[in-house]
Amino acid sequence: MNAFSKLLGTELPIIQAPMAGVQGSTLAIAVSNAGGLGSLPCAMLDAKSMERELGALKAGTTRPYNINFFCHSPPQPDAARDERWRKALRPYYEELGLDPNAPITTAARLPFDARAATLIEHYKPAVVSFHFGLPNRDLLTRVRASGAKVIASATTVAEAQWLEREGVDAVIAQGFEAGGHRGIFLSDDLSTQVGTFALVARLVKTVRVPIIAAGGIADARGVEAVMRLGAVAAQIGTAYLLCPEATTNAIHRKALKDETAETALTNVFSGRPARGIVNRLMRELGPISGLPPEFPLASAALAPLRAKAESLGRGDFSPLWAGQNASGCKEIPAAQLTRELASSNPAHS
Amino acid sequence: MNAFSKLLGTELPIIQAPMAGVQGSTLAIAVSNAGGLGSLPCAMLDAKSMERELGALKAGTTRPYNINFFCHSPPQPDAARDERWRKALRPYYEELGLDPNAPITTAARLPFDARAATLIEHYKPAVVSFHFGLPNRDLLTRVRASGAKVIASATTVAEAQWLEREGVDAVIAQGFEAGGHRGIFLSDDLSTQVGTFALVARLVKTVRVPIIAAGGIADARGVEAVMRLGAVAAQIGTAYLLCPEATTNAIHRKALKDETAETALTNVFSGRPARGIVNRLMRELGPISGLPPEFPLASAALAPLRAKAESLGRGDFSPLWAGQNASGCKEIPAAQLTRELASSNPAHS
Repeated sequence: MNAFSKLLGTELPIIQAPMAGVQGSTLAIAVSNAGGLGSLPCAMLDAKSMERELGALKAGTTRPYNINFFCHSPPQPDAARDERWRKALRPYYEELGLDPNAPITTAARLPFDARAATLIEHYKPAVVSFHFGLPNRDLLTRVRASGAKVIASATTVAEAQWLEREGVDAVIAQGFEAGGHRGIFLSDDLSTQVGTFALVARLVKTVRVPIIAAGGIADARGVEAVMRLGAVAAQIGTAYLLCPEATTNAIHRKALKDETAETALTNVFSGRPARGIVNRLMRELGPISGLPPEFPLASAALAPLRAKAESLGRGDFSPLWAGQNASGCKEIPAAQLTRELASSNPAHS
Repeated sequence: MNAFSKLLGTELPIIQAPMAGVQGSTLAIAVSNAGGLGSLPCAMLDAKSMERELGALKAGTTRPYNINFFCHSPPQPDAARDERWRKALRPYYEELGLDPNAPITTAARLPFDARAATLIEHYKPAVVSFHFGLPNRDLLTRVRASGAKVIASATTVAEAQWLEREGVDAVIAQGFEAGGHRGIFLSDDLSTQVGTFALVARLVKTVRVPIIAAGGIADARGVEAVMRLGAVAAQIGTAYLLCPEATTNAIHRKALKDETAETALTNVFSGRPARGIVNRLMRELGPISGLPPEFPLASAALAPLRAKAESLGRGDFSPLWAGQNASGCKEIPAAQLTRELASSNPAHS
């Protein structure tokens, strides 16, 4: 039994990266049934949706899967900061004919909590992954006691060492190339974020738990390369975004197919740095700005802009999350993609 | 004959990265004689020193080597900008007891020119590499006519495609992880710079000339990994910095051995973005700042500060260039390091 099957219980060393907002249980089930580790992102699910999705997963596969949560501290209310953000967005509201004073709904990105822990105890997923650090020790103890392997993202050597001390079963080395939110949690200094190649190579040498590589991996050659570096598995998100099982919308799909598109880290969509395809909002207010309120509040005031622009076929205000290597995106079933990604790695070598 | 030996004429797929300021012909000769491609950086050499070093190379090895040049456009004089920079540095001058009004020498970083082309025609190196784009077409034609293979750095897909159109023999994919100056030349937007893993993977798919991978590669496993990604060779700098043949000073060597050190891209030392170990000047004025004059002028006013601080054993004002993975630095002869780097890659596989 090799390192990844011991860790994840899977046939293939492939984790489908959890991608809140663009996938649910359907993608995860397809990947798990193909021999990889499908992931269900829960950050944007309320309790009812989470239970429905967990039920779907249980019904859809007998293979291991991963349930993913954010671990941020919800921000304190700050009316002045919210007002500053709404003021910055006002010209866009006016341009799109929207009422800049209409009430906005609070953004629904919730951290892991006791209710989620109860669901984990009930559904007993094989793996639980965390982003932005870990939940408090009581909650973490409950997850471990459920029998789940616990894995979490590190963006620096210091974060990986911290996670190891807290007892994770494996560290996801989230390289600079990775799409979506950076897992950075011990610092807010983006200037020292590390590329996938260097991060994986260094973590393999500095922590004892297995390393899962993430960021820029798009095909079988990439999977093989990170395993040569010493990773036990690859976590891949962007490549799955064109699969029919993903809920990626048409605007996002079109942007992913544009070979001249480039990505950048931006905090304008949520208040935390995340990698997405450069679009109008990033160009005009960012990509990194002091204006957005704390995560996850920035997205609330953007929601009406995003909806209106998307209804006009434009992604100007949409977070087009993607990693730096979209060359592996294919419009093929996720099961087929999973097998292709693992094709250079015989399952039991 | 495999791709790298056809391209470089070497036994091993290893290029020792040219590192102006911390090495000369001695390191290059050791690497070339060990079967890799040694490199001589010429950006900081005047004509006399360049000729001396080229003579030493010719005398020291019969194997292929690489001569490296910068291709920047020298900046226009701008007294106001220089004054602003000197004013920003004044508190440091005062702290170190230096005269902030003493005349300073212009920084000596010269682009490739007709005189250098004449030396290339005379010494006929196997390879000439360029950073910050390429020289003008007349000069480039002279280099090609000398029989040298021409290689150059790209930091984005667009730069690699541009270099391919201009007729380079291979593209160096300089990933985000790489130490020293970023080769970026079609843009000054650092937000879309690409990690080594994603850059190599994408360039292999988008340009037809061979790709040389650079950035974060520190050992044989790293070399093997980039070759799995499709690179024909690895260009490695940081790992050589502790070799006895490098002229890396004691302060720089000590910083490289500090396992907690992190690097960042900074423009405060030269006026162009480069990766170095985070130190006082980067923390206090940068890492990226609007203050420094254009490349390479920023370094002139720093020189007295750097010299004085170094005489006190401090690297507060020294560019401690390094990539994001210093884990491969070893105090062993460069020949031994070169063979170790290539140990997973049989020479004639």
